[in-house]
Amino acid sequence: MKALVTGGAGFIGSHIVDRLIEQGDEVIVYDNMSSGIEDFIKPHFENPKFKFVQADILDVGKLKTEMKGVDFVFHLAAHADVRSGFDDHKIDLEQNLIGTINVLEAMRENNVKKIAFASTSSVYGDATIIPTPEDYPFFPTSLYGAAKASAETYISVFCEYYDMTAYIFRFVSWVGERYTHGLVFDFLNKLKKDPTTLHILGDGTQKKSYLYVKDGVDAIFTVIEKAKEKINVYNLGNDEIINVTESAKVIVDEAGYKDVKFTYAGGDKGWIGDNKYVLLDTKKLQSLGWKASKTTREGLHVTTRYLLDHPEVIEKRNKK
Amino acid sequence: MKALVTGGAGFIGSHIVDRLIEQGDEVIVYDNMSSGIEDFIKPHFENPKFKFVQADILDVGKLKTEMKGVDFVFHLAAHADVRSGFDDHKIDLEQNLIGTINVLEAMRENNVKKIAFASTSSVYGDATIIPTPEDYPFFPTSLYGAAKASAETYISVFCEYYDMTAYIFRFVSWVGERYTHGLVFDFLNKLKKDPTTLHILGDGTQKKSYLYVKDGVDAIFTVIEKAKEKINVYNLGNDEIINVTESAKVIVDEAGYKDVKFTYAGGDKGWIGDNKYVLLDTKKLQSLGWKASKTTREGLHVTTRYLLDHPEVIEKRNKK
Repeated sequence: MKALVTGGAGFIGSHIVDRLIEQGDEVIVYDNMSSGIEDFIKPHFENPKFKFVQADILDVGKLKTEMKGVDFVFHLAAHADVRSGFDDHKIDLEQNLIGTINVLEAMRENNVKKIAFASTSSVYGDATIIPTPEDYPFFPTSLYGAAKASAETYISVFCEYYDMTAYIFRFVSWVGERYTHGLVFDFLNKLKKDPTTLHILGDGTQKKSYLYVKDGVDAIFTVIEKAKEKINVYNLGNDEIINVTESAKVIVDEAGYKDVKFTYAGGDKGWIGDNKYVLLDTKKLQSLGWKASKTTREGLHVTTRYLLDHPEVIEKRNKK
Repeated sequence: MKALVTGGAGFIGSHIVDRLIEQGDEVIVYDNMSSGIEDFIKPHFENPKFKFVQADILDVGKLKTEMKGVDFVFHLAAHADVRSGFDDHKIDLEQNLIGTINVLEAMRENNVKKIAFASTSSVYGDATIIPTPEDYPFFPTSLYGAAKASAETYISVFCEYYDMTAYIFRFVSWVGERYTHGLVFDFLNKLKKDPTTLHILGDGTQKKSYLYVKDGVDAIFTVIEKAKEKINVYNLGNDEIINVTESAKVIVDEAGYKDVKFTYAGGDKGWIGDNKYVLLDTKKLQSLGWKASKTTREGLHVTTRYLLDHPEVIEKRNKK
């Protein structure tokens, strides 16, 4: 199989790439390197089955060229910072919706029939059913969530129009090796500047679950192997939820900081558009035989340790 | 109240305008006249509370200017031809999604807090639950449906970000006075050219319901008056469904054609992306006290009669 992985130099994308190479597949990484890190894919540079293309998904011409002969697209490229969409209304629309439409158009032109798409729990917004199942309707509270939800509807239509098959994954936040942004990253950055105080957005009560990256990648490949619908939608999450203050304690503890004082911005959400209680129903995924190997807490421990052992990742990301 | 009605010179929009004027509201019609008809709003031209602006919702600057002092937006402007999106992938994205985002941005800049939005049963695609309730998830099969579904998610986010209130109406096809496009229009056009044969897309078994325009307008104003959520989503439909062959018989009968032979293009859908069985669950709407005054068949009769009595409408539309 020849796979094209958009965002393949990123946190999740590079793990997908490793797995594909391991399986003996041909891989094209298509990444604009806005948040990708070359080190994550460098081990494959000498592999004749591997190709790296530095380009943007907004460049539809380039996408169409690189899509030639591809069998399967893993579309991971995205603007993944949920918060910043409030101040910049264009970025999610362009990177997460228009970019996805471009990927679909390039697939259509090259007769590529299969796509796996990284969607998000944010499509549900502040769900009133928790754990939230896949058939819960879309009421996103962030432009990030709206753009991802919209992208899902476009994928749905391309499946109808051009007989494509889609694997749509609605993610909670992921953690683990090569983690490059999010809560653990922000907290370690803050603690490095001031090891005595950790300022927490919201009131610390927002509850989230985190999925360990190797579990997430296993889930993706399990679904691709076993799910047989035209459009296969799966929640990817972890059953253990943890509030932000508890997460902060895990991170502080693993990092070895002592007597850190927590201060709070206040409010029951971390930012405008945040969802205060995110727990996905993963029964559908589990019915395929998948099981998480790490709890939310274990994932946070591993991630903290990884970032402490790889200060260059924090440095490189802070420079971007 | 000062209302701005996008698409206010169109079929549904002009009925909304009549109702607002009747209530004593100030009204701005904002319409690019791509499918609007001046005659529909002409009766208000001398009314000092009425203003007509010929402009496109893609002109965000103009939208922002006209939005000043507005209290309520009825956003009806749309590319309403579901079929043509298959051949032109840009039109729904631009007119139905980007246009809606422009309306929302203009509202935000002018602190306008209320929007009523014309969405569609097409957001559900080929629903497996029939009648289909409002909490059914989005799996559109047309780019028209995808753009409308996407627009709904953007409205949801603007409600969260900027404390707006939204009234979202998922329509089946509307019929009645000032009807300007769709099944009745197409069939009468065909019969005028050849009164002996009527060619029907699909195999004639696709089932649809049609909502009479005055019932639809009543429904919209009932919901706006009585619904109290931040985001109020209501299906608007009719309980009587009818297949395409039956619809054709009603139209032929009302128009007085004799011995018309029906021929069929074949296939269980009228076109790529069509939905073969559309019946919305309107219990939520009915719980507010609304009731349809005309059945689907009665609506088709009225519409056929209207178009026969107003050949100028067919002529004007055919010229556009």
